[in-house]
Amino acid sequence: MQRRKFLKAAAVGTAGAALAAPMVNAQGARNLTIVSTWPRDFPGLGLSAQRLAARITELSQGAIQTEYFAAGERVGAFDVFDEVASGNSQAYIAAEYYWIGKHPGYGYFTAVPFGMTTTEWNAWIKFKGGQELWDRLAGDFGLKAIPCGSTGAQAGGWFNKEINSPDDLQGLKMRIPGLGGTVMSKLGVSTVSLPGGQIYENLVSGAVDATEWVGPYNDYFMKFYEAAKFYYTTGMHEPGSCLGFGMNASWWGGLSDWEKALITAACLEEHAAQPEETWANNGEYLARLVNDHGVQVRAFNDDVWDAFGDAAAEVFAETRDHSPLAAEINDAFQAALREIGTWQAVAEIEYSNQRNRVLGLT
Amino acid sequence: MQRRKFLKAAAVGTAGAALAAPMVNAQGARNLTIVSTWPRDFPGLGLSAQRLAARITELSQGAIQTEYFAAGERVGAFDVFDEVASGNSQAYIAAEYYWIGKHPGYGYFTAVPFGMTTTEWNAWIKFKGGQELWDRLAGDFGLKAIPCGSTGAQAGGWFNKEINSPDDLQGLKMRIPGLGGTVMSKLGVSTVSLPGGQIYENLVSGAVDATEWVGPYNDYFMKFYEAAKFYYTTGMHEPGSCLGFGMNASWWGGLSDWEKALITAACLEEHAAQPEETWANNGEYLARLVNDHGVQVRAFNDDVWDAFGDAAAEVFAETRDHSPLAAEINDAFQAALREIGTWQAVAEIEYSNQRNRVLGLT
Repeated sequence: MQRRKFLKAAAVGTAGAALAAPMVNAQGARNLTIVSTWPRDFPGLGLSAQRLAARITELSQGAIQTEYFAAGERVGAFDVFDEVASGNSQAYIAAEYYWIGKHPGYGYFTAVPFGMTTTEWNAWIKFKGGQELWDRLAGDFGLKAIPCGSTGAQAGGWFNKEINSPDDLQGLKMRIPGLGGTVMSKLGVSTVSLPGGQIYENLVSGAVDATEWVGPYNDYFMKFYEAAKFYYTTGMHEPGSCLGFGMNASWWGGLSDWEKALITAACLEEHAAQPEETWANNGEYLARLVNDHGVQVRAFNDDVWDAFGDAAAEVFAETRDHSPLAAEINDAFQAALREIGTWQAVAEIEYSNQRNRVLGLT
Repeated sequence: MQRRKFLKAAAVGTAGAALAAPMVNAQGARNLTIVSTWPRDFPGLGLSAQRLAARITELSQGAIQTEYFAAGERVGAFDVFDEVASGNSQAYIAAEYYWIGKHPGYGYFTAVPFGMTTTEWNAWIKFKGGQELWDRLAGDFGLKAIPCGSTGAQAGGWFNKEINSPDDLQGLKMRIPGLGGTVMSKLGVSTVSLPGGQIYENLVSGAVDATEWVGPYNDYFMKFYEAAKFYYTTGMHEPGSCLGFGMNASWWGGLSDWEKALITAACLEEHAAQPEETWANNGEYLARLVNDHGVQVRAFNDDVWDAFGDAAAEVFAETRDHSPLAAEINDAFQAALREIGTWQAVAEIEYSNQRNRVLGLT
């Protein structure tokens, strides 16, 4: 039923192209089953993933027939890795840091605390050796992944009290996953990792005191403002969380050059569009949170950032100790961050600081 | 000869895909002649444009046969607009601000002083109404344009003396085009607009005292360091110059949905890749300029930026006075800049400032 509906929609989408373009060979059409970590029609991330699945079918004129399963429709969100590694499905859409339990190197292919922003990460992945390291890591699990989305720099999160010093973090119960959560736990925070659909109820019940999610546009629909009024601007934990389109490596290896090019183009188109959609809407939704829901916007001060920095340094040292490959990925990432970031500091960042000062943007 | 060589190369590129994928109908193959404003094999911009032309042929499996002409090979760089508007060729690759003589609104679809960065501009164009305004402007000339590249925030330029106050700009002869040049001229600079291939000789001969171009990676190959040793980090003039793939509107209107989707995907893939390639390499090439060629890096101080700001305000007022459409474009741009930029200031920018402070990046 789900499948028939989808194929029908895909057929409508490409019908207009039938005359001028290559004929679709129905016999040779390749099936691409995609399992996702997002609920169906999930604002932002889920809709973006569904858009990508439809785009691959559209660009290939049906030569690649994608079938998309949201979290739980075929396998559970966190089971997609094994589902694709085993060859049972061909691709997953996920944040690669979900797999840091399998290898801590995976964190660097989503986001790490004090790491690269989306634009810096893109430069590293595509043009400075990042993809090659990702291929080696994923290859060890029979997978091949490419970028397919990003959140941009994430907000620091929702708190029910102000955080004016590192001491204010002590004893807090916070939903914050990944290495960012590990940093927080070193500062006395009791951290938990909850899927998106369970955060609101835990915040309202008081099971957690604080949570981070993405940013104003995504967070608005989660209604966290009903339980926590202090919303912190950028945190250290996810400075540009990038998503991966993870494919079974044998399946990928059997594709033609054209099929590889087409899937890559569709993924990179969405990799750009997803953060741009977020950036386009964050300002508007931040204003709504403040004006319609009484949210109070705060920024972490330098003392708090310095404490984050000390804790993050410990986390990276521990990550390096895991294995030679983890150390190699960390060191390549840190070197690229400094080489790319040093210019960005005096280009995009210096420009934005001066423009915002002169124009009076807060 | 040029054409035969290209088609042969394209055939080799897609040969591996012949089995599994849609058959190319040679009769129905669509010709797409692209005229460019960049010299052949020009580092950065030219190579990116050539990559885009080849990619459209590759993704379409030859159903769209692109033929690429660098500047001067079919028409001169600045004649591409009329060439495509007339329907003689189907598309150009250019910076839209080359056409501000036809309409000043065109400046906003490349970059304007104190305007949006590449990421902000992308958000505006794709998700906040920018493309619709661009379509109205281009439509008045029988054209339809979409993004296909960007330089990122540009360096302030090359000077043979330090600029420590607005007074130091008085009487300077500088190569700086567009509205950024107009801002400079209000501060007493005698500005000229020279194509890339003529800047070096004018700088060496002393015909100009200063020039801006793009950033370390692109500027390195221009050898400006032989004649000017002071290299300024970000300027106000081009905070993310985006390029346009400008098509004849009637031709575009006659394409199938599939052909439109495919050209769009190829352009957006390159629109992301071009600045990422630059960002990946700017840090490395800045170090080379400093270490191998004795270049001294400087930043404009707040006094100079304030003077830039006052002059830019005058320039925008003049631009608004041109026509109702110019005023509408300016006002929509300025509103989007503030809405999008206000969040970016406390997300990407605040994050980068804190990270760079904590990690000690300069």
